[in-house]
Amino acid sequence: MPKAIFIVCDGMGDLPDPKFGGKTPLQAAKKPNMDKLAAEGICGLLHSVGGGRVPGSDTSHLAIFGYPPDRYYTGRGTFEALGAGLKLEHGDVAFRCNFATVGKGMKLIDRRAGRISSSEAKELAKLFDGMVIGGVKVIFKATVEHRAALVLRGKGLSWKVSDADPHDAVGVPVLTVRPLDGSPEARKTADVLNELVAKSHGLLSSHPINKERAKKGEPQANILLPRGAGVFEKVPSLKERFGIRAACVAGGALYKGVARYAGMDVLEVKGATGNANTDVMAKGKAALAALKAGYDYVFIHVKATDNFGHDGKFREKAKMIEKIDLMVGLLLKGAPKDAYIAITADHTTSCMKMRHSHEPTPFALRGPGIRVDGVKKYDELECAKGGLGHIAGIDVMPMFADLLGKAHTYGS
Amino acid sequence: MPKAIFIVCDGMGDLPDPKFGGKTPLQAAKKPNMDKLAAEGICGLLHSVGGGRVPGSDTSHLAIFGYPPDRYYTGRGTFEALGAGLKLEHGDVAFRCNFATVGKGMKLIDRRAGRISSSEAKELAKLFDGMVIGGVKVIFKATVEHRAALVLRGKGLSWKVSDADPHDAVGVPVLTVRPLDGSPEARKTADVLNELVAKSHGLLSSHPINKERAKKGEPQANILLPRGAGVFEKVPSLKERFGIRAACVAGGALYKGVARYAGMDVLEVKGATGNANTDVMAKGKAALAALKAGYDYVFIHVKATDNFGHDGKFREKAKMIEKIDLMVGLLLKGAPKDAYIAITADHTTSCMKMRHSHEPTPFALRGPGIRVDGVKKYDELECAKGGLGHIAGIDVMPMFADLLGKAHTYGS
Repeated sequence: MPKAIFIVCDGMGDLPDPKFGGKTPLQAAKKPNMDKLAAEGICGLLHSVGGGRVPGSDTSHLAIFGYPPDRYYTGRGTFEALGAGLKLEHGDVAFRCNFATVGKGMKLIDRRAGRISSSEAKELAKLFDGMVIGGVKVIFKATVEHRAALVLRGKGLSWKVSDADPHDAVGVPVLTVRPLDGSPEARKTADVLNELVAKSHGLLSSHPINKERAKKGEPQANILLPRGAGVFEKVPSLKERFGIRAACVAGGALYKGVARYAGMDVLEVKGATGNANTDVMAKGKAALAALKAGYDYVFIHVKATDNFGHDGKFREKAKMIEKIDLMVGLLLKGAPKDAYIAITADHTTSCMKMRHSHEPTPFALRGPGIRVDGVKKYDELECAKGGLGHIAGIDVMPMFADLLGKAHTYGS
Repeated sequence: MPKAIFIVCDGMGDLPDPKFGGKTPLQAAKKPNMDKLAAEGICGLLHSVGGGRVPGSDTSHLAIFGYPPDRYYTGRGTFEALGAGLKLEHGDVAFRCNFATVGKGMKLIDRRAGRISSSEAKELAKLFDGMVIGGVKVIFKATVEHRAALVLRGKGLSWKVSDADPHDAVGVPVLTVRPLDGSPEARKTADVLNELVAKSHGLLSSHPINKERAKKGEPQANILLPRGAGVFEKVPSLKERFGIRAACVAGGALYKGVARYAGMDVLEVKGATGNANTDVMAKGKAALAALKAGYDYVFIHVKATDNFGHDGKFREKAKMIEKIDLMVGLLLKGAPKDAYIAITADHTTSCMKMRHSHEPTPFALRGPGIRVDGVKKYDELECAKGGLGHIAGIDVMPMFADLLGKAHTYGS
């Protein structure tokens, strides 16, 4: 049976920038392997969450894994928690969480507590993991620097609650979590969260690590700021739905989380950081090894293209694309002859706008029996002329299922 | 008022085959008339049941006649029974049925009873037609060779039952029909079917025709194998929905059945067999005559392209396309000047994969006021460049309704 490698470069799609000759980073980059993939395959444009909508990274990945986000998405917390390696149970309400610094009147000073070290955060996390508030169990795990995952487990909880995190509004007091509907569950969840946030201020402020940081003049990690509530639902896996044995090669926790949600095995790859310094060749090799080990489908995620888009760094984004292109070359050479290889982005992240935008992303697919369409370049403009046309994210996984010989005929 | 001819060549879409210079059968065939239709018209690709899904022949035709299969489709049995000319009533549960041969322990020997002759099967059918089991009326009609249509009529029936037919699993015992949900209706229907199958073995085994076959060393038609349960629902016809008087020219029973479901008149055409030997010119003439007789829309179905795809016969498929092309020539010459003529396939049937696959099918439409798009060839690659883009099956009938001047403005 044929196999598939699906490469998703986060936010790699972009818009033509007059400062760079009206080119997009993909057009400016030298990427002979992506172009080869396009020339040997069929191309199109991907609307990951449907036409006209601005995709998030969580919703777009849900869609391209075959889970319509309108049905399955609640909040990002669930996927961050899964990505952090927490085992979730049906009904758990999960949050992303920052260690942050507040001053007098609980006013926000630094949303990232001076990017406190991962080791300090791990120590501080012990204050909260296992705590019980109003009969609700708190599960807490620090991940990278100031970032953490928070899970509330118990009866009668809801994800319909607002954030405690004021986001970019430095100087304002930490927000009181509010229920977002009239349900007693949302009320209870908000109460538990508000109590946790209040307690965190006391517990953290008196912790030796913070006393040490204060001495060194560093911002204290003296409060928890939960956000992005989501409820975990056990859903049928890709194996159950399509008979596809799937693996994930990613650095970023969110992407591992969505992959775990879909029932993929997340492979740990040394050097896969989710940053620009990530070892793309190690990721490529891990993907090839996974195919050999019996996986039908390997999802490879590269994050840094999106980061450079958010930071407005056109040149760095183009450089990152050139780095990823080496991995594509490795995959084109090393994959079995009958393997399908596809590349796309989950959304457009415009360097000019420094944010996600709605425009679709180039998609190229190579493999046996493909209707090669004559498109020679992998970019936003050339792929628009391709034989795939405009495809919806939610159609991608059924397409792979058929290519892999795993689809069921609809009707007879 | 303008009129329309809609030609659907079953499974005509295909994939490029390296054994034939990387061409598809459509690309390999000489089909000047299809190319003329494309050149004088607008082209695109059709996703009959939506992106990424592998269409069946029943679901795809439902969709292109304007009945969303997710809403209307239960199982193939209904359409086979309608195609066999049985008059169905709302709530009837219908099945496809084979005469088959079993040996000791009810183990399947030949799923087609040695392709018993149609005349023998017609005689055997009398054993079952009109039978009553547990208050449920059995309606039974033999069609071609070992094939038959079975209808159960009565209160409290359900289509949520499994097949008795083990399909390709020769050597295994005939399956016990199981209810597919917990309803008493499904339980009752399964019971009736199991009783019918058991009875059929006794009745058929002692029938003189089978004694005669045994003497001649031919496989006995000693059991009925029902499959593909569907429930019949009386739906609004194309006349009621769009004011379109529609006719069907087809050989295969299934296609006649879906056409009848949509309220089309099925024209009997001598020589329309549903096989490669079908008289395509007779079908074309019948379509032209139907337009003259006052029909607004004639659906012409040709089946054999699909059969050759399933059998992996590239050359024969291309030859069949050349045969169909002569009919297209007849229609282009003979149709009224203001008639719309469209051609497509209901799905791709890959000669390499010998099965249906998800890839869209070329669509070409000629007629007054059409935005001619410069596409010169009717095939999977060229039509991808056409002005229609990628269209969904469910949008085809509303498009015809407007072309025929029968559509209602949505809003005002």
